[in-house]
Amino acid sequence: MPKEHKLQIMPLGGLGEIGKNMTVIRYDNQILVIDAGLAFPEDEMLGIDIVIPDYSYLLEHRDMLLGVLVTHGHEDHIGALPYLLRDLDVPIYATRLTLGLIQSKLKESNVANIKATVIQPRDVVKLGVFRVEFIRVSHSIPDAVGIAVHTPLGTIVHTGDFKLDHTPVSGDIIDIHKFAELGDKGVLCLMSDSTNVERPGFTPSESRVGQMFDEAFRNARDRIILASFASNVHRIQQAITAAYKTNRKVAVVGRSMINVVNIAAELGYLQIPEGTLVDVDEIVNLPGSQACILTTGSQGEPMSALTRIAMNDHRRVEIQPGDTVIISASPIPGNEKSVARTIDHLFKQGANVIYESVYGMHVSGHASQEELKLMLNMIRPQYFIPVHGEYRMLIKHAQLAEQLGIPRENIFVAENGSIIEFTRSGASLAGKVTSGNILIDGLGVGDVGNIVLRDRKQLSQDGILIVVMTLSRSTGAIVAGPDVVTRGFVYVRESESMLEEVKEKVRQVMARCRENRTSEWAVIKSQIRDALSKHLYEKTRRRPMILPIIQEIE
Amino acid sequence: MPKEHKLQIMPLGGLGEIGKNMTVIRYDNQILVIDAGLAFPEDEMLGIDIVIPDYSYLLEHRDMLLGVLVTHGHEDHIGALPYLLRDLDVPIYATRLTLGLIQSKLKESNVANIKATVIQPRDVVKLGVFRVEFIRVSHSIPDAVGIAVHTPLGTIVHTGDFKLDHTPVSGDIIDIHKFAELGDKGVLCLMSDSTNVERPGFTPSESRVGQMFDEAFRNARDRIILASFASNVHRIQQAITAAYKTNRKVAVVGRSMINVVNIAAELGYLQIPEGTLVDVDEIVNLPGSQACILTTGSQGEPMSALTRIAMNDHRRVEIQPGDTVIISASPIPGNEKSVARTIDHLFKQGANVIYESVYGMHVSGHASQEELKLMLNMIRPQYFIPVHGEYRMLIKHAQLAEQLGIPRENIFVAENGSIIEFTRSGASLAGKVTSGNILIDGLGVGDVGNIVLRDRKQLSQDGILIVVMTLSRSTGAIVAGPDVVTRGFVYVRESESMLEEVKEKVRQVMARCRENRTSEWAVIKSQIRDALSKHLYEKTRRRPMILPIIQEIE
Repeated sequence: MPKEHKLQIMPLGGLGEIGKNMTVIRYDNQILVIDAGLAFPEDEMLGIDIVIPDYSYLLEHRDMLLGVLVTHGHEDHIGALPYLLRDLDVPIYATRLTLGLIQSKLKESNVANIKATVIQPRDVVKLGVFRVEFIRVSHSIPDAVGIAVHTPLGTIVHTGDFKLDHTPVSGDIIDIHKFAELGDKGVLCLMSDSTNVERPGFTPSESRVGQMFDEAFRNARDRIILASFASNVHRIQQAITAAYKTNRKVAVVGRSMINVVNIAAELGYLQIPEGTLVDVDEIVNLPGSQACILTTGSQGEPMSALTRIAMNDHRRVEIQPGDTVIISASPIPGNEKSVARTIDHLFKQGANVIYESVYGMHVSGHASQEELKLMLNMIRPQYFIPVHGEYRMLIKHAQLAEQLGIPRENIFVAENGSIIEFTRSGASLAGKVTSGNILIDGLGVGDVGNIVLRDRKQLSQDGILIVVMTLSRSTGAIVAGPDVVTRGFVYVRESESMLEEVKEKVRQVMARCRENRTSEWAVIKSQIRDALSKHLYEKTRRRPMILPIIQEIE
Repeated sequence: MPKEHKLQIMPLGGLGEIGKNMTVIRYDNQILVIDAGLAFPEDEMLGIDIVIPDYSYLLEHRDMLLGVLVTHGHEDHIGALPYLLRDLDVPIYATRLTLGLIQSKLKESNVANIKATVIQPRDVVKLGVFRVEFIRVSHSIPDAVGIAVHTPLGTIVHTGDFKLDHTPVSGDIIDIHKFAELGDKGVLCLMSDSTNVERPGFTPSESRVGQMFDEAFRNARDRIILASFASNVHRIQQAITAAYKTNRKVAVVGRSMINVVNIAAELGYLQIPEGTLVDVDEIVNLPGSQACILTTGSQGEPMSALTRIAMNDHRRVEIQPGDTVIISASPIPGNEKSVARTIDHLFKQGANVIYESVYGMHVSGHASQEELKLMLNMIRPQYFIPVHGEYRMLIKHAQLAEQLGIPRENIFVAENGSIIEFTRSGASLAGKVTSGNILIDGLGVGDVGNIVLRDRKQLSQDGILIVVMTLSRSTGAIVAGPDVVTRGFVYVRESESMLEEVKEKVRQVMARCRENRTSEWAVIKSQIRDALSKHLYEKTRRRPMILPIIQEIE
């Protein structure tokens, strides 16, 4: 009997979460990867900088790896590449702008000599047994693509992040003809973006924001400071155009936006009228009616330019009464409070702030329900896997697909690490591969785990109390200490008597230990911890970490 | 020349923030207080339980204090009373339900023997020079009132939290006649709720939620689990009514909701058909179509009933496939992610979840723009102070008032602690009194300040590294250690070589100190900190707290 061929789809990130998107497609012994993104840490991941997918599956199967296909240049799709490419020598396929952004990231991380191929929408690339097609989509960054992977068992379509924009700021519209053609020929499995599945209707066109910019720029008599996502090149284009129309010069503030503007302009994705772009030192000396500052910080990030400006802590820009600040972004879930605080501070500095929740100076880059239905009906896939979304979004997207006639048993609400396996006879969930979060803290990749995070959590809530003493090895008697040091627990100057009581408790425990001839340090320490923990909770209703340290001399 | 009489309004909380509402009104040497609420801690207030206003002004002027007038029974209006009443012997004036909730709080905090007067809407109370009128308003808790304080210099109207509800679930509508009458007679100053000033139009009636409950309860074939705010008695009433109409028994789960239901039922604010309310042990044995569970946890609070149910960690209730969970609340800013996580877990347990962002199973208790305009136009105050709101909301509310014809110079966008002073000749900002946050951490009231919080912040990000050694007093030589202990910094088992390097660095510093005859501990410790800080940052890009501890023996 001949061996049965198997096609497997394994999402390693982006399912049950927003961020760190990564999908593995395997046919027999050949593997393709779509995207390698990062996620931002959850609140409980104290001190963590970023999170990347656990890609040990790829390390274990490195010989099968044919390439990484990248849909677009957002961090949640490219942010894990510097780590992945340090570990694996694998070719990258991406559009021109996407690759420009990737290469800038890799340079920062000192990763060199990668194999990269620039592709264009409608390009077809043969990789082993796979034939890969790249399909233009609309999104909040130019040069985004969806991907069709033709395999001997059928075609897989991955939308990437997408929306339908009939009046794009630049470039062509999403390639509905190609999606329709694929659907017509037959698609085995669709993976589609679930980010906005909770929103009814259609997502408005990016160009609507441009109209609002035009109006706001005309109405402002003084300076305009506009904050948006650094990577939203179309948004930046529209701001530059609105500035040009109202005879304003434009300065860009904020490292990441300067970086994107440079790359996008160099590669021809930004049209900047000559003389429009000036240095920030020049802009602050222009009359307000001739000045526009583009900046990062639309999410209220603590170190960003707009936040510093709002806190009156920016080196070169300070708010002047009459300034109009436009925040052209909506808060990403979790950032609501920091954005609100930034707005409050800007008002306090005397600015007029035009922000999203009141004025709608933002549109999303993701498809709403009607667009998702259109994609499902264009592709008419045999099987459907909702991707890019928290669990409830995947469920909603599955319900949407079911409403359109895809049988429930052909829809897989999967998890990171799930194996969705296709053979000639059908498809099924076929176990799991290793998946999870790799936490990045400074230079450490994956070295901060549950124990460290649990300790940080306890330290953050009630601080630490350290008891130090030196014992005589021969007699077991205390020869120095007990000394008590606390941090983050109580204000020491007002707690001297409590800390004296702590020392007394420790002396009592030590006396009891000597009576009972207890000399094992582990036992002594545990008794100190128990006695102090109880005592301090009664006195303060707090549970600081209690850390007894014992030294010994001859 | 006779002494000029002065009327002062001093907000001690609720301005530039949501929560801890408290306003002081002083005429010459007589003082009234409106509300004494708490706020929930901001993210950076690590380990803090609640925040109350700094009321040292009242402690310093305790002899002038005539009473605390309470507008309604929400925590942000009554939550500071247990602290205030421990410090001050002052009479409380509140409606029946409000007082019931206050007394339950005080009992928990072991505060007894307070002087309390039950008032009703339209009651008039004489307190010293003041004549105080209580005015019925609609809000998301029954028995809420606004307050008019008649003073020799004119009338002050404070709306409390309010909305307009033309079809209230029970009781009368907001007393527009009294507000109109006050406006007609002339009001010196209006203080009005700014919470919803960013929302255009009218806030829908609470009874709209009841209609949606009826429909959802009819459609559910199996059990209903409904989460809402414990104090929203009207919401609870509507859920009980919907359950009764569909022949369901109701069990209440969650300590705070059980408490409110008991108080409200006892005082006649909840109509529960006989036999409808049953114990949770009974409800879990009923057929799903006959069961409804009301519960707390609509904000995804970690210890709440709904969160435990979602995590499959509740003692008595577990999700069964077919259960409908209704979350009848919108996330308070800052809680978006925990609410989303709870919804995801409920879906994973197999429930069908009906939640606010998709289904609108909630209406706000605060007035939107058109209602705020109506209040301003009914009262037609000479002066206006927007209250209860973050800074941008106060600004928006001020702009709204200006649009309605109140002169800009008669509108005070004030801060906590501002003195707004009225005399015969006019009104002005006249300096500030002490105000601010008192942080409550366990039993500690105000003992956690900036130093402790800064330490908790650092500990939460990169943990702590402790260096301990014992020196000989005579020679200065190291006789024990250096030992290195870390918590929350790195995973120790994988970092042994780094910790060995740390010890070596410490030995080098000590050797250098001995060479230079440096024996002052402060200097030695500072050199250790500097050397290790630099070394560890280079190695890890982290900045743990570094804590050298030195002991000495003869």
